[in-house]
Amino acid sequence: MTTTGSAAPTPARRRGRPGHDQAAILRTAVELFNRKGYDATSMGDLAKELGLTKAAIYHHVTSKEQLLGEALDDALDELTAVVDEAMRDRAGTTAYARLREVTRRSVEVLVAHQPSVTLLLRVRGNSAVELAALERRRWLDDRLAELVAAAVAEGSLRGDVPPALVSRLLFGMVNSLVEWYRADGMFDPVTIADVISLIAFDGLARHEA
Amino acid sequence: MTTTGSAAPTPARRRGRPGHDQAAILRTAVELFNRKGYDATSMGDLAKELGLTKAAIYHHVTSKEQLLGEALDDALDELTAVVDEAMRDRAGTTAYARLREVTRRSVEVLVAHQPSVTLLLRVRGNSAVELAALERRRWLDDRLAELVAAAVAEGSLRGDVPPALVSRLLFGMVNSLVEWYRADGMFDPVTIADVISLIAFDGLARHEA
Repeated sequence: MTTTGSAAPTPARRRGRPGHDQAAILRTAVELFNRKGYDATSMGDLAKELGLTKAAIYHHVTSKEQLLGEALDDALDELTAVVDEAMRDRAGTTAYARLREVTRRSVEVLVAHQPSVTLLLRVRGNSAVELAALERRRWLDDRLAELVAAAVAEGSLRGDVPPALVSRLLFGMVNSLVEWYRADGMFDPVTIADVISLIAFDGLARHEA
Repeated sequence: MTTTGSAAPTPARRRGRPGHDQAAILRTAVELFNRKGYDATSMGDLAKELGLTKAAIYHHVTSKEQLLGEALDDALDELTAVVDEAMRDRAGTTAYARLREVTRRSVEVLVAHQPSVTLLLRVRGNSAVELAALERRRWLDDRLAELVAAAVAEGSLRGDVPPALVSRLLFGMVNSLVEWYRADGMFDPVTIADVISLIAFDGLARHEA
């Protein structure tokens, strides 16, 4: 997932002003929003962090809210793609298999897009952009609850638990990793996904054979 | 847990100016910090929300950081008490039983102290007060990982999972509830604690007998 250390040349088209193109501004903005809080971060703070004038930043972006919207869309587009795929009722796959798959792929998205997902998970609904993001999150949550309910209905998951509560807790566990996951940390994404699946579906207790 | 609507007389010592004593200021401050972000909230915002002058607030508290510190201590003191109790190696209790108990009691603390725990979980370490809180959180996390390791060692929990990762994910699932739990919502704390235990220890998959 990381490309650090790669010596491969990068395409010139996005690198006219190295480090100061729109993608770089967005990356730095998201990092600042996560560190200081979105409301407490000004475009002046962002300019200072980038070593640019505010005018130079406004050459690339129209507002702080545009940066927020782009970061939230980045996270939401990825998560929506994963959930859309899981909801496709393909021949030969069970809801249970698709639920396990969406759990694993969510971990991949959280790791690959950790800064924008972190921002998404902290959104409180303080503006139109935030409310729209919360609306999209709710849609995802509803689909995941449907998938849990389908896995219960087909007999794969125990039926004595409310699907809406299970999906909140299961993806609460998945989402928690944005708070502590580090690319250079003790655990790699594959191990994390394995252990989440093991906890959620098999349980930690040593089952007597 | 709420005293709203109670007609019982309260001790005069803390109620010289009903609704504007230190506890009420703290409650409103935490609510504002969670809604707008701590860094984005000024003492002026707090005064406005309370319908007081800033001078009236400074009569009760010395700084915004004092309010943050008190809120974080509230959450941390409660969680520390729960973890301390769980770490006491009492005759006749297994580490597994104590791990299940600390999971359940953590849910109770999160529900009863939701605003201050929410604030605690969002602390990034931007000041001495925040760094001290992160230090106390780390101590709690380490104890919980020890308890998971003890439950593995006694043979209650499966041994093929790293205890530090298990405790992060287990309490990540527990902590997630501060984001969506509502006292008037669909699920009560007892049901939530039951379902968390069921997911974490028994697993969601329908086990073949």
